[in-house]
Amino acid sequence: MQKIKAGIVGAGGYAGAELVRLLVAHPAIAELRIAARDAEGHFTDTYPALLQASHLVFARADSAKFRAGLDTVFLATPHGVSMGLVPEFLQAGIRVVDLSADFRLRDVKLWERTYQQQHACPEYLDQAVYALPELHAAQFEQAQLLACPGCYPTAVLLGLLPALEAGAIDPDSLVADCKSGISGAGRKPKTSSLFAESSENFSAYAVEGHRHQPEIEQLLTQVTGAPAGLVFTPHLAPMARGMLATLHFRLQQSMTLDDLHQLYSQRYRDEPFVHVETPPQTPQTRWVRGTNMCRIGLAQPLENRVVVVSAIDNLGKGAAGQAVEVFNLALGMPRQTGLELTPTVP
Amino acid sequence: MQKIKAGIVGAGGYAGAELVRLLVAHPAIAELRIAARDAEGHFTDTYPALLQASHLVFARADSAKFRAGLDTVFLATPHGVSMGLVPEFLQAGIRVVDLSADFRLRDVKLWERTYQQQHACPEYLDQAVYALPELHAAQFEQAQLLACPGCYPTAVLLGLLPALEAGAIDPDSLVADCKSGISGAGRKPKTSSLFAESSENFSAYAVEGHRHQPEIEQLLTQVTGAPAGLVFTPHLAPMARGMLATLHFRLQQSMTLDDLHQLYSQRYRDEPFVHVETPPQTPQTRWVRGTNMCRIGLAQPLENRVVVVSAIDNLGKGAAGQAVEVFNLALGMPRQTGLELTPTVP
Amino acid sequence: MQKIKAGIVGAGGYAGAELVRLLVAHPAIAELRIAARDAEGHFTDTYPALLQASHLVFARADSAKFRAGLDTVFLATPHGVSMGLVPEFLQAGIRVVDLSADFRLRDVKLWERTYQQQHACPEYLDQAVYALPELHAAQFEQAQLLACPGCYPTAVLLGLLPALEAGAIDPDSLVADCKSGISGAGRKPKTSSLFAESSENFSAYAVEGHRHQPEIEQLLTQVTGAPAGLVFTPHLAPMARGMLATLHFRLQQSMTLDDLHQLYSQRYRDEPFVHVETPPQTPQTRWVRGTNMCRIGLAQPLENRVVVVSAIDNLGKGAAGQAVEVFNLALGMPRQTGLELTPTVP
Amino acid sequence: MQKIKAGIVGAGGYAGAELVRLLVAHPAIAELRIAARDAEGHFTDTYPALLQASHLVFARADSAKFRAGLDTVFLATPHGVSMGLVPEFLQAGIRVVDLSADFRLRDVKLWERTYQQQHACPEYLDQAVYALPELHAAQFEQAQLLACPGCYPTAVLLGLLPALEAGAIDPDSLVADCKSGISGAGRKPKTSSLFAESSENFSAYAVEGHRHQPEIEQLLTQVTGAPAGLVFTPHLAPMARGMLATLHFRLQQSMTLDDLHQLYSQRYRDEPFVHVETPPQTPQTRWVRGTNMCRIGLAQPLENRVVVVSAIDNLGKGAAGQAVEVFNLALGMPRQTGLELTPTVP
Repeated sequence: MQKIKAGIVGAGGYAGAELVRLLVAHPAIAELRIAARDAEGHFTDTYPALLQASHLVFARADSAKFRAGLDTVFLATPHGVSMGLVPEFLQAGIRVVDLSADFRLRDVKLWERTYQQQHACPEYLDQAVYALPELHAAQFEQAQLLACPGCYPTAVLLGLLPALEAGAIDPDSLVADCKSGISGAGRKPKTSSLFAESSENFSAYAVEGHRHQPEIEQLLTQVTGAPAGLVFTPHLAPMARGMLATLHFRLQQSMTLDDLHQLYSQRYRDEPFVHVETPPQTPQTRWVRGTNMCRIGLAQPLENRVVVVSAIDNLGKGAAGQAVEVFNLALGMPRQTGLELTPTVP
Repeated sequence: MQKIKAGIVGAGGYAGAELVRLLVAHPAIAELRIAARDAEGHFTDTYPALLQASHLVFARADSAKFRAGLDTVFLATPHGVSMGLVPEFLQAGIRVVDLSADFRLRDVKLWERTYQQQHACPEYLDQAVYALPELHAAQFEQAQLLACPGCYPTAVLLGLLPALEAGAIDPDSLVADCKSGISGAGRKPKTSSLFAESSENFSAYAVEGHRHQPEIEQLLTQVTGAPAGLVFTPHLAPMARGMLATLHFRLQQSMTLDDLHQLYSQRYRDEPFVHVETPPQTPQTRWVRGTNMCRIGLAQPLENRVVVVSAIDNLGKGAAGQAVEVFNLALGMPRQTGLELTPTVP
Repeated sequence: MQKIKAGIVGAGGYAGAELVRLLVAHPAIAELRIAARDAEGHFTDTYPALLQASHLVFARADSAKFRAGLDTVFLATPHGVSMGLVPEFLQAGIRVVDLSADFRLRDVKLWERTYQQQHACPEYLDQAVYALPELHAAQFEQAQLLACPGCYPTAVLLGLLPALEAGAIDPDSLVADCKSGISGAGRKPKTSSLFAESSENFSAYAVEGHRHQPEIEQLLTQVTGAPAGLVFTPHLAPMARGMLATLHFRLQQSMTLDDLHQLYSQRYRDEPFVHVETPPQTPQTRWVRGTNMCRIGLAQPLENRVVVVSAIDNLGKGAAGQAVEVFNLALGMPRQTGLELTPTVP
Repeated sequence: MQKIKAGIVGAGGYAGAELVRLLVAHPAIAELRIAARDAEGHFTDTYPALLQASHLVFARADSAKFRAGLDTVFLATPHGVSMGLVPEFLQAGIRVVDLSADFRLRDVKLWERTYQQQHACPEYLDQAVYALPELHAAQFEQAQLLACPGCYPTAVLLGLLPALEAGAIDPDSLVADCKSGISGAGRKPKTSSLFAESSENFSAYAVEGHRHQPEIEQLLTQVTGAPAGLVFTPHLAPMARGMLATLHFRLQQSMTLDDLHQLYSQRYRDEPFVHVETPPQTPQTRWVRGTNMCRIGLAQPLENRVVVVSAIDNLGKGAAGQAVEVFNLALGMPRQTGLELTPTVP
């Protein structure tokens, strides 16, 4: 097993803390360092739950102490922050696994319109590898800048991929009705994320347009080879973690539920982190909680209409888990290293 | 104000208990009686929270004590039970407001296929008035048997009605992605409804077909005058009460979001229990909790694609609240009588 | 019924919003005005749920528009803010019902030590009436400045009052183990109140000393006529509303559970907002949710040891409900005016 | 590492399922078998979340298939069931780790009074080792019948042990105010455990006497050498997992908080599954979720009065985790084997 020095920038946020949980137990990590803008002192001052990380102390991301001899850095920073850090890390020969949106879109104009700011280093967009393992793993090994997919794009794409590749989806019929736990809104305090506001409540948000929409469309276009759109409607459910994407589409061609189940099972046969359910079972978010799994269920309620249910943990396969998976692949390690996780029941 | 003797059969269940909450405070009810198969003794032995109902004692639904002099009976009984009770009540001249599914479908064969049992009194299906106030109020006044809509059909229909009536919906594009609180599964103990199973969890269910589907299709057909189908996908959210229907469809004709908003506002202008939000606001289930309101939001994420978000309380406008509204209308009382309810915040 | 002009300062917070919910439906309020430091525009911009209050627009508390002709003002402002407003309101002849802690303690030094600031108008402490209706109602009628009790002091005192008055409590044995819903931490965003931090979690806080402790001790001393202390341990439970005080003490004298039940029932016989349960039933927070009730259960697990369980809604009898009750009494109205509230079940 | 054949009876319940989660990943278990009265088929038919256990199939506990060659059997059966199984397992030379209450009490009369039934094999009570590792580990190695402590006794005893052993507690002053998640009520459906009944609710229960009380008193007596009682008041909090014991007592002797902290730190210095917090920090149930940890906080709000806050996962250190720890010790393995668990954050 390799012995790697890794760092996490943004370890004070939820995706960063989940990275800490995974990487302190990762057998290939010989040394783990953390940095954050808003946190200082011991990691356990911020997250007393994670006793296993009580030796970690926040440093500044631009300090020699943090950077010296680093092999890989994970950026769990907000959108717009990563792009300010990436050039220096790359120039110092440090591989970057970026969990933010800064290097996910190919088109800088689209990025700037979506995130409402100027991109700090558009020259790096080209060398960034968009890193959905089930689709792009072959490109990881030499990559120095890996842009991990967003949580919604991951849940949606994995739910559609086999059907998309088979040309089975009427591109004009696609609806992604998605539901996220509240940790998706981050750890920064805001009124709508308060327990007293969000418990016993269910709501849609950003119904006119969410910033993950262009990322999903870029993926659809890449897979199908044609410009593609969809109706993407995110919702908030009163739970801390979890994401369920309910995907509705019309079949382009005649298929039975059994055909569909075979198509999906075949496509994901060798994928360790995707599990296709036997119909009529559909997955629940609890089944993937705390893990890097995506579980997918299939239904065909009307003759030519399909419903795919795709469940991930928004902080697992939707963020930190997938980042570790990408890291494993980029370093040529077994993909499941450090990711053999079980959900708690109940 | 009239002084009415009313009874509730099935007052031990959640819809029945909500009826008790509403009817003990209803100014036209001079005397309230309750019955249940599984409960006995004082109502507050079963529901200690409702002190205002501590004078109520469960009787048998077939006892003289329960029936003598009754004007109206509410049946909050499970599907398949109401139909065994209705003939006798009607023959005794007692008006029936039925919250179950027993008299909702016109087609007895469809009913029997859907509910997997023989109908006990198909001869009454014809005289039953399907009672969605916003659509059928004109038929209530002489009606002796009123079949209240299910919670899902109510949320879906109110969300679609103006667009359906305007012929704006491509009938082949309709998706109703619906989310319900767990009280929708009833008070009868079952594993999947346990807190330890359903908290911090989100799931789809009955994706291949839910028994409310024929009821929704009957309504669509009735409004549009043509056979109509839809993809209807129910989900469970970790909250006790609340229902959100996210309705996706393609426009049959060119319309702006503003056109749509005007259409909905106009249609519901005089409806006291439907509130149309100003875009881009969409309603949340908390906003209608404990009330008889349906709140509706509109969005048009792509040129010809519409998303309607419709929020009700599954036990309010989805069950007991609507039953009281139907009762008010059937007796010629002001529609809001006993229904001026505010949600608690937070 | 009187026709009163009332105002609420701090209507943007949770206690203020609950006051709005109660006062828009209060039959004696002819005109209601609202003010807040942090909110502007329509009340329903901040709280879209409360459609009944959609006519209310935030004004400045110091504007003529807010003050002109006002009979009574409710201050639902943070501790330290009320005292800056009170003198002017009183000088303008406006009765003040203060929900903050600013006028609850008799001893200005103790107040300043507890709230870590200088008191702005200690000269008003003497004329302030501490307003627990079950204990001080007789002093309300001429009062111009009414200081409503805190939520913890209300739950604790009502749970102890009959035993305290009877001299039944060994003063050295008292433990108040209290549990609050998360709305008690207010609407101001903070990390520990986020859903993602507080769901599926239970914790103690301020175990070395909570600022409600001196207020509780002042009450104990007042009732027993001797200096009194207690161990007061507050906890946070993962729910939006509700407060349960579990009160443990040793009996000073020999009593049976039946004696105790009689003592409590007798003491609260004429109190409309206190309900004593028949043992062994103990109350649950759901039973009082959204109401002004305090429900009290009694147990005697060992010969001379008593457990009292006292349940209130922290925003009801613990804040806004009690403030309305105090207002009703101060104006000589029937005490239940506007407070006939039922909890929702489930 | 040893290669052991282990079985779980009662794998359909929550403690049993948690044992499955832990034991499928336990490096010393070469073969794992499961049995249950109410479940059949694959384990994942009942618990689809635990994909890692998808090879496990329920057998009958009395079948040769289940018993042949078994080294150790875990009994996660309801009280009253274990005692019917134990004699045969022991006679077959199979070590028993019993999670039920059947062999926890020394005094058969007390057991029979507490559990309201006759004990099936009182002759085994003497050879049963009550198995709280922090107190009795020395007796485990030759033991064939190990009776694991209940969740409440574990949380309470670990919170009191150092002070009890030091004679610091006034025995007449002890109050254990305990709060449990709802999984403590088991997986068997019952009304009070429904989400719709228990969410947004907090309640005390069994205030006059809970069946864990004699077990706690037996432990107190054993440690102090004198008959001992306490007031033990259990509560239910709206969360799936977690237990917090708030322990109140008067000091027998003069001690500072610092003395107390030293006493606790010293006592638990070599205990891997107990963590003493530095005052004023007190633990939260989330910090131990899914783990075998007990975290303990200390406070001294009044001169001679102490509050200890003890947090465990009721299914971890309170049940399955501790059973695995006991098993590790009984077999002479490193105590943390298979128990290096981290809670998820958030």
